[in-house]
Amino acid sequence: MIRAAVIGGSGYTGGELLRILATHPQVEVTTVTSREYAGKPISLIHPNLRGFYTINFTNFSMDKIGEKADVVFLGLPHGVSLNYVPKLLEMGLQVVDLSADFRLKNPEIYKYWYGIDHPYPDLLDKAVYGLPELHYEQLKGAKLIASPGCNATATILALAPIVKGDFTRDLRFISDVKVSSSEGGAKPSEGSHHPERQNAIRPYEADGHRHAAEAEQELSILSGKDVKVSIIPHAISSVRGALASAHVWLDTERNDMDIWKGIAEFYKGKRFIRIIRGGIHPYPDPKYIIGSNFADIGFANEKRLKRLTIFSAIDNLMKGAAGQAVQSFNISRGFREDEGLRTPPLRPA
Amino acid sequence: MIRAAVIGGSGYTGGELLRILATHPQVEVTTVTSREYAGKPISLIHPNLRGFYTINFTNFSMDKIGEKADVVFLGLPHGVSLNYVPKLLEMGLQVVDLSADFRLKNPEIYKYWYGIDHPYPDLLDKAVYGLPELHYEQLKGAKLIASPGCNATATILALAPIVKGDFTRDLRFISDVKVSSSEGGAKPSEGSHHPERQNAIRPYEADGHRHAAEAEQELSILSGKDVKVSIIPHAISSVRGALASAHVWLDTERNDMDIWKGIAEFYKGKRFIRIIRGGIHPYPDPKYIIGSNFADIGFANEKRLKRLTIFSAIDNLMKGAAGQAVQSFNISRGFREDEGLRTPPLRPA
Amino acid sequence: MIRAAVIGGSGYTGGELLRILATHPQVEVTTVTSREYAGKPISLIHPNLRGFYTINFTNFSMDKIGEKADVVFLGLPHGVSLNYVPKLLEMGLQVVDLSADFRLKNPEIYKYWYGIDHPYPDLLDKAVYGLPELHYEQLKGAKLIASPGCNATATILALAPIVKGDFTRDLRFISDVKVSSSEGGAKPSEGSHHPERQNAIRPYEADGHRHAAEAEQELSILSGKDVKVSIIPHAISSVRGALASAHVWLDTERNDMDIWKGIAEFYKGKRFIRIIRGGIHPYPDPKYIIGSNFADIGFANEKRLKRLTIFSAIDNLMKGAAGQAVQSFNISRGFREDEGLRTPPLRPA
Amino acid sequence: MIRAAVIGGSGYTGGELLRILATHPQVEVTTVTSREYAGKPISLIHPNLRGFYTINFTNFSMDKIGEKADVVFLGLPHGVSLNYVPKLLEMGLQVVDLSADFRLKNPEIYKYWYGIDHPYPDLLDKAVYGLPELHYEQLKGAKLIASPGCNATATILALAPIVKGDFTRDLRFISDVKVSSSEGGAKPSEGSHHPERQNAIRPYEADGHRHAAEAEQELSILSGKDVKVSIIPHAISSVRGALASAHVWLDTERNDMDIWKGIAEFYKGKRFIRIIRGGIHPYPDPKYIIGSNFADIGFANEKRLKRLTIFSAIDNLMKGAAGQAVQSFNISRGFREDEGLRTPPLRPA
Repeated sequence: MIRAAVIGGSGYTGGELLRILATHPQVEVTTVTSREYAGKPISLIHPNLRGFYTINFTNFSMDKIGEKADVVFLGLPHGVSLNYVPKLLEMGLQVVDLSADFRLKNPEIYKYWYGIDHPYPDLLDKAVYGLPELHYEQLKGAKLIASPGCNATATILALAPIVKGDFTRDLRFISDVKVSSSEGGAKPSEGSHHPERQNAIRPYEADGHRHAAEAEQELSILSGKDVKVSIIPHAISSVRGALASAHVWLDTERNDMDIWKGIAEFYKGKRFIRIIRGGIHPYPDPKYIIGSNFADIGFANEKRLKRLTIFSAIDNLMKGAAGQAVQSFNISRGFREDEGLRTPPLRPA
Repeated sequence: MIRAAVIGGSGYTGGELLRILATHPQVEVTTVTSREYAGKPISLIHPNLRGFYTINFTNFSMDKIGEKADVVFLGLPHGVSLNYVPKLLEMGLQVVDLSADFRLKNPEIYKYWYGIDHPYPDLLDKAVYGLPELHYEQLKGAKLIASPGCNATATILALAPIVKGDFTRDLRFISDVKVSSSEGGAKPSEGSHHPERQNAIRPYEADGHRHAAEAEQELSILSGKDVKVSIIPHAISSVRGALASAHVWLDTERNDMDIWKGIAEFYKGKRFIRIIRGGIHPYPDPKYIIGSNFADIGFANEKRLKRLTIFSAIDNLMKGAAGQAVQSFNISRGFREDEGLRTPPLRPA
Repeated sequence: MIRAAVIGGSGYTGGELLRILATHPQVEVTTVTSREYAGKPISLIHPNLRGFYTINFTNFSMDKIGEKADVVFLGLPHGVSLNYVPKLLEMGLQVVDLSADFRLKNPEIYKYWYGIDHPYPDLLDKAVYGLPELHYEQLKGAKLIASPGCNATATILALAPIVKGDFTRDLRFISDVKVSSSEGGAKPSEGSHHPERQNAIRPYEADGHRHAAEAEQELSILSGKDVKVSIIPHAISSVRGALASAHVWLDTERNDMDIWKGIAEFYKGKRFIRIIRGGIHPYPDPKYIIGSNFADIGFANEKRLKRLTIFSAIDNLMKGAAGQAVQSFNISRGFREDEGLRTPPLRPA
Repeated sequence: MIRAAVIGGSGYTGGELLRILATHPQVEVTTVTSREYAGKPISLIHPNLRGFYTINFTNFSMDKIGEKADVVFLGLPHGVSLNYVPKLLEMGLQVVDLSADFRLKNPEIYKYWYGIDHPYPDLLDKAVYGLPELHYEQLKGAKLIASPGCNATATILALAPIVKGDFTRDLRFISDVKVSSSEGGAKPSEGSHHPERQNAIRPYEADGHRHAAEAEQELSILSGKDVKVSIIPHAISSVRGALASAHVWLDTERNDMDIWKGIAEFYKGKRFIRIIRGGIHPYPDPKYIIGSNFADIGFANEKRLKRLTIFSAIDNLMKGAAGQAVQSFNISRGFREDEGLRTPPLRPA
């Protein structure tokens, strides 16, 4: 039994980790920290988990964490994780970091997007970018996993087969993303106030979204070319789920089978990728993967203009955050990739 | 391994059964029928289940069902199940009927509410009303389980501790129920058209809802008194979840602890009942049980007027339909009551 | 042209007043105050009003308000309005107060519900309760209008014809109210955070809601009897609209026509009451009055149990707040009752 | 007083026309036709309009329409309007056609997208494309107005200042549109069933959307260049409102003021265009124009990649359909452009 700690356990990602780990047969959660709620029962903040945990939130203690945990899931803000990771690794703990702090290999790019001089640039190389569809082998035995951002996950999964294939020489991509409100986290704000957010169709961070850095890094590594991606997120009414619509100008007209093959071969054997084509639900829709770790990938091919759009649908708290973190953790430990992640998506939801 | 057939498998209840049974360790689904979609893959209609089933929908065949199944889940309309049940029982199959056809003990009451002369009144006594919180012992070994209606489930669970206790001599109750759109089933209609249903707060069947018959039957049996219940459902915007607000006039002013005790003792040890009191989520809210088989029970006590309201929150497709059917099935077979039902609720959803 | 000031103009009620008054032919808004946004343009906070106002928010000044306004609409919290009203009246201004501070005639009841010793009990008698369907004549020339609460409005309009008629001697009523998120105002909170509020079906203030005091006062005055009302509000997903379901136990079985007549005669000639009966939309639904000042009234009659439910649907920001305030103001000034209020409701919305 | 007929009055566009015309001072609606509901009251289908109309739906009669109407608004499906227009014009009636039948100047392009040989190609030249921001002068006195499609309106308004300016030589554009459920019309379907549509983020007609034809025509005429547009619509949860995100690759890096000026000058003096920039609502959001005829236009400029996105927000039933039809009609008659269209948008909604 692996003992796990969830640091920053009162947010949505922390809550989702607790939800998954509650039934994970190889993991026991021993510690859940929260500065704000230390001493309070977990179900006070996560009412869905009433009856699942008897432990309370505690304050984080670097001294004691080593006695209590084998793996630490960090659900902390960017710039905060930074300060925990080196010490935890030194103590011999495995770290799964859900912040952006160890995702980017190049500290200058980290500084460009996050405004912080990275204090541990040497650790960046040791971190494995926790997208199992691209880094399965590296994840085996990984001690530091940098779990990807949600919009980056959706965007990379959409474009990976394209940049890897021979579809286009135009390597600037638009990823127009539609995101649900839980992506913004558990802290209320003017923009998340229900009367303002409900029925909104609202672009945000539209002149440059940070997750582009991850997408450009991963797609460039994968293809060996200099890929540029512009991510334009739009806040909509749903609570869970994100859809990336990645728009591509093809070099030449391609038929659908051709494109389908490119995607299907790229993702052959991937446990959590489902390729969508035809039927009465011909395109991916995050609605049909709620609560699961799947990414559904599909496409639309407007031959008239040689315009191709790849759609990539995820549950932002699962494949976009906690689910993917557990998937990477499972691989790192040699467990079944889908341990704790086998419940089918809800429908309707 | 128990072989299961889901008859009427293209609706929401059928889909939810398939979702649960996909990971139930003691059950293998061998047959899923649908007149409309026979020959088509299950995931055509249930896109969430892509990757979980390889069998297709088939037409129902009474001749062959005996070779393929040990238990039959009937997800058919009222008045249709009637014609399947006797034959299936004769063939030695276990039947879990999710329609109303075998819920009521008195065929005249069945006729009053459903307009049908019951052709098999003798079977009514043999059927066990599949509400495990009231009929746990009878469910053991049951061959015919009549799974309750969703609004009846919510109403009965709210009022059972009250009529069993000494709270009131006024045995006419109002159960004001708020229901999500999936309760109406998978068939489109004018009222379910998104632009009409979204943002609606719409009473329906408000001059007499059929589930009152079940509630009156069960609460009267339980209390030994003549209980009357008026269920007034209201369609609202959510997709899943129902809340019953059962309003009670108390005989005398009671303090909160007293009421809490009455409920807590009544439900002591019940696997899927959670009693809610205090904290920042002081009342039950179906939002926090989505995807699970829980019923959350709580109350508000307006001493000024001796008015007590019991709130009962369920996921209408789980505790209100498929989840409860599997729970009853588990008990009937001597399995763990929560087999296939252990995934925690989603949050946020 | 009447010069109007909106005090507390950055909230939803203030915004709705500005929206209505923008096209009111007899009113010019000269002053809109907001402590937080003084100096900022109105459209910064109310983006819907871009292009409608050129003035900015200002700080409130008791000294200057007399030069700028003939009527003052107070959109301030309870307990704050108290301190503005006497001085404004002294200065000869008309006051339309949208808080609860002058709604209750009995200062002890005010203290019971709001916890404040009323400092100006003599003004309570002078205030006219701004529900035009009950106080049309008194509103003519009124200098101080206490505009009703939204849940009180819906509840009173539902029950007024009942207590005035001969339907029941049981004068304790349940008003089970379903409310949209804009009722909670413009300030974000944990409960209004979109991921928490969306899809909620959540009772609140369920052990005693303040608006009961208004409802009991008005229904008792109207009927000459001691009426008791318990209001149990439930937060649901919509942004606008509230439905009160007022449950009544009849003395004797009554037919529908009888009940219809009782309601129709009571509301005969009332400009903003629509009585709903039959057709494909047989019950009131706030969805179909969004953006308008209507209250739709209808009912369901379960003869089997002599249970009658009166449904009352309003737009909580219109008939439940700003719309009704303008309606009362219009009457007080001898304008057409519907001035500024003639645009039909939106559909679908 | 102009007498108006609304043909096909039971749908959402018909209903919205009736809502607007109910308070239009120069128009009296004398005739509303519906094959399905002839003889039934208008409020049976449009419950929001209870109390606004006393006439019933009738069957359309070409013989009698001339006696009853001066202008005919056609809310009929594509391919059906075709057969009404020539005769109505011959009879001397003015026609405002809300279908696609007279929007395209080139009958071959009409055939490509709609599959119909246009029987009256000569009328195509006489029709004025009813987008007042581009064709104000031509609309004066127009006898046949072809009112634009909603997604075309949003897309054209976004891109018009761009193609008219010197921003890019890359004239292939992506218009990624997010649309609300009312765009699909009033007829229920599998996809519009509430449990399926709510929380969906679902691409549709994604391999070529018909409104591209209108957008290409208008943008090419305007710019004198061969503009290509790919419209990719996504169905989301809202009921009203559409946002087009038109993605542009700039020739050179441009500063924000430059872009702002390009847009502001293009739309100078346009009554229903609001240009959005900065503040706490820095981008257009259809949420804040619900119920109004505005189009809000704004942009995001990612200098790093020379990527510009123009956002264009409309209420799909107003500026996207009925509102724009009335705006064009007003201009054609020499009325104030905003007659019947002056009520501010709702907020929150």
